[in-house]
Amino acid sequence: MRRAHRPQAVAIAEGYIPSWSNGLEPEFLSHETASILHVSDAGAHVTITVYFSDREPAGPYRLTVPARRTVHQRFNEFEDPEPIPLSTDYASLIESDVPMVVQHTRLDSRQAENALLSTHGLRGRRLSFGRRGFVPAGSGTYRS
Amino acid sequence: MRRAHRPQAVAIAEGYIPSWSNGLEPEFLSHETASILHVSDAGAHVTITVYFSDREPAGPYRLTVPARRTVHQRFNEFEDPEPIPLSTDYASLIESDVPMVVQHTRLDSRQAENALLSTHGLRGRRLSFGRRGFVPAGSGTYRS
Amino acid sequence: MRRAHRPQAVAIAEGYIPSWSNGLEPEFLSHETASILHVSDAGAHVTITVYFSDREPAGPYRLTVPARRTVHQRFNEFEDPEPIPLSTDYASLIESDVPMVVQHTRLDSRQAENALLSTHGLRGRRLSFGRRGFVPAGSGTYRS
Amino acid sequence: MRRAHRPQAVAIAEGYIPSWSNGLEPEFLSHETASILHVSDAGAHVTITVYFSDREPAGPYRLTVPARRTVHQRFNEFEDPEPIPLSTDYASLIESDVPMVVQHTRLDSRQAENALLSTHGLRGRRLSFGRRGFVPAGSGTYRS
Repeated sequence: MRRAHRPQAVAIAEGYIPSWSNGLEPEFLSHETASILHVSDAGAHVTITVYFSDREPAGPYRLTVPARRTVHQRFNEFEDPEPIPLSTDYASLIESDVPMVVQHTRLDSRQAENALLSTHGLRGRRLSFGRRGFVPAGSGTYRS
Repeated sequence: MRRAHRPQAVAIAEGYIPSWSNGLEPEFLSHETASILHVSDAGAHVTITVYFSDREPAGPYRLTVPARRTVHQRFNEFEDPEPIPLSTDYASLIESDVPMVVQHTRLDSRQAENALLSTHGLRGRRLSFGRRGFVPAGSGTYRS
Repeated sequence: MRRAHRPQAVAIAEGYIPSWSNGLEPEFLSHETASILHVSDAGAHVTITVYFSDREPAGPYRLTVPARRTVHQRFNEFEDPEPIPLSTDYASLIESDVPMVVQHTRLDSRQAENALLSTHGLRGRRLSFGRRGFVPAGSGTYRS
Repeated sequence: MRRAHRPQAVAIAEGYIPSWSNGLEPEFLSHETASILHVSDAGAHVTITVYFSDREPAGPYRLTVPARRTVHQRFNEFEDPEPIPLSTDYASLIESDVPMVVQHTRLDSRQAENALLSTHGLRGRRLSFGRRGFVPAGSGTYRS
């Protein structure tokens, strides 16, 4: 009856880094952030893949979240293997070898006053075969 | 023990396209967007039905999300079978033949400064019979 | 193997109606809204209970969502059995006899420019006995 | 077939208390709030642990939610065992001895006009052993 946890994936369908900003940097630089919380006693190895509307995905971007720490990763600080283009629609899939919590936030400071949005990423399973790449948790399934 | 995934439905109860805007277009045109992520190796066929408070539903609106792509679909760009009216409360049901992730975002630029909201759509199952049209994932059920 | 669906409950922990507004009414009147979507072929009977920090709950507030319709109900338009006080922290529990989708949105127009927030309500089950009044869907359970 | 409910945990990965504000206090003081709803007939004992990017966690912060009440707890009002530092990325884990609903909201009034964000916390289970500190509800599991 012991349980071992599968590698986990979290999807964020909405992504857009505004291409300009107003106000002091870095506080008011327009940005998108993936806030990752990892409360266990061992580090988490995290991989991020970025999807676009008109080209193949970018990444993987890799980062480590130490034990009992949170990392608030800004998408506009990615450089390896390539920066995320500005003013471009994207989406992201965040995978970890252990359970984690991922919340997505955007600060849009293109105008004089900021706008904010935030929501938790959608958890699911990343499948390595066939045509079903990501299955949201709780999706209806048939057994055959 | 193989599993095949059912067609999937995602509901967004909140919908409202502001009827005016401030600022440059198309960036700052007031709009609502359904961001759809589809990470598998085959395209997804997506159907959107729009519900109102005082008339029968509009649609279906159809779009395709290619393999490993995201589509950020603005509701104010729908034209066939009819445009979504402005300044009108609506809700939407988004259906796909394969698993997908849907996030809903509104940019409201009616005033000088933008406001943003965003949340993931609520996943569930679309039933084709009886009086139970959409059942959110994880809803309590009796077996009889 | 037929399934019948239990009455459903959705909780929104965050509630606050700002006590003043800027701009044209009713568009820019500060308000909180519960957007309810009901896609089936029969109407839904909905009951809303409002909780406070320092007094017993208010309600029930009753409304009907017709078949294939959405209702975007503003909390500041409730009058029976009593209006929701302004500038007061509250939370709400929304119950229905059939499955529904509930999304919560606030428009805060206390300052010159609007701010928006939105999220889906948390689904669960309302229990009529004992000390466990509302159990979020997917909560860990023991069987005894 | 009776069910008893496990102690519950809710995670919020995004946390940041802006270090300055504009406007009247306390309404427009920049703040983060955890809104907790507890609808049962007995009080809930709640414990909050706060995680950072570069130091060990702070807390536990303790509060009680009475029967049929909501508490909207501002993170910037915590004092015991220590205040939450301003302008610092953090995340939080909120635990209760009975089921509850937790929603997270930020009011950012650093500029002349407010920005708001809000989302429900991610529910899961807090494990007291091994390297798996928090497991989101619905995570895929192996049985071995």
